[in-house]
Amino acid sequence: MAEALTLHEDPRSGNCFKIKLTAALLGLPLATRAYDIMKGETRTPEFLATVNANGRIPVLQIGDGPDARFLPESNAACWYLAHASHLIPQERFAQSDMLRWMFFEQYSHEPNIATLRFWLRFVGEANLSAEQRAQVMPKRIAGSAALDLMNRHLARSAFFCGGSVTIADIALFAYTHVAEEGGFGLGDYPHINAWIARIEALPGFVAMD
Amino acid sequence: MAEALTLHEDPRSGNCFKIKLTAALLGLPLATRAYDIMKGETRTPEFLATVNANGRIPVLQIGDGPDARFLPESNAACWYLAHASHLIPQERFAQSDMLRWMFFEQYSHEPNIATLRFWLRFVGEANLSAEQRAQVMPKRIAGSAALDLMNRHLARSAFFCGGSVTIADIALFAYTHVAEEGGFGLGDYPHINAWIARIEALPGFVAMD
Repeated sequence: MAEALTLHEDPRSGNCFKIKLTAALLGLPLATRAYDIMKGETRTPEFLATVNANGRIPVLQIGDGPDARFLPESNAACWYLAHASHLIPQERFAQSDMLRWMFFEQYSHEPNIATLRFWLRFVGEANLSAEQRAQVMPKRIAGSAALDLMNRHLARSAFFCGGSVTIADIALFAYTHVAEEGGFGLGDYPHINAWIARIEALPGFVAMD
Repeated sequence: MAEALTLHEDPRSGNCFKIKLTAALLGLPLATRAYDIMKGETRTPEFLATVNANGRIPVLQIGDGPDARFLPESNAACWYLAHASHLIPQERFAQSDMLRWMFFEQYSHEPNIATLRFWLRFVGEANLSAEQRAQVMPKRIAGSAALDLMNRHLARSAFFCGGSVTIADIALFAYTHVAEEGGFGLGDYPHINAWIARIEALPGFVAMD
């Protein structure tokens, strides 16, 4: 019997949504346990000792009780769930190229596009610190460059790694499709919009909360 | 016959060093072509059209001529090189957990520890913009938190994923072992220092330029 899967999450987080969307596309049952990161619920001594010493969600829990294992980092959790499925190409270069887009997502996309969404939608512009305020424009520029690169790539390819969906698409979809909540206009990126529509039409697709 | 491997690199970059260290530990021949990122040599029209539309190094080139393929993102290049080797665990959870540390490296470690090294050692403190200056202290705090998490993990484990080296160790080693160039003291992290010594003692180890 397959081990129980539990997602420790904040439902507002796109990083958590990646894992829920991967599970949904694969038809895998996934329990959830919600935390409010705005209230510090992932920084409690119990959370740090048991779930993630790094104090962050999402964390994918595999199994229950004393033998449970905990896997932080959204893209690593997607990798675990999609093991040996059609969402991960098996050919050596294609698989490496898929990971290339997932590392791009964590380095060049998420810190700009997700962070501005968090600041503008959840923290509120009036509540930003001076340091955060100084970062809005650099993140706006870097996030726009990431979207431009994606748009140019998607002009030549239906999904990020060729003609079918992989977990690289799921990773990049999570914050791209809500980028407007962070003040990024998507009107200039027709290939991104067509790709968003393709993902939303996939069998098993679930929307973000 | 194996395809020729060429690394497009700047020798001062720890991200490029990851790939050279992976190749060295595996005994793989790897040609290099050097660019000076300070002079914009990775932003030329030819580089953007051929090597990487994202204008960044490292890029691993596989093969030559019109059939050459190009793989950006340091950790994806390490994944390609280490395919089916002892540097990647095959068991599902262990492999996912290795990727977890590699995503941690790109999200929580490199943007803080590598960026401060670049700013302080190569750009020079006097040449930083006001925006960069405002980021020094947040990056100091976040980078120190990453080192603390690594040190606590290495108190219980010889390498990041158990008793033998993986590409997660290589990814984290690259900028950790030169963290003092970015103003991070390593004296408080005895388990990191012991792990650095273990990596430097590996057969085939090569030092950074």
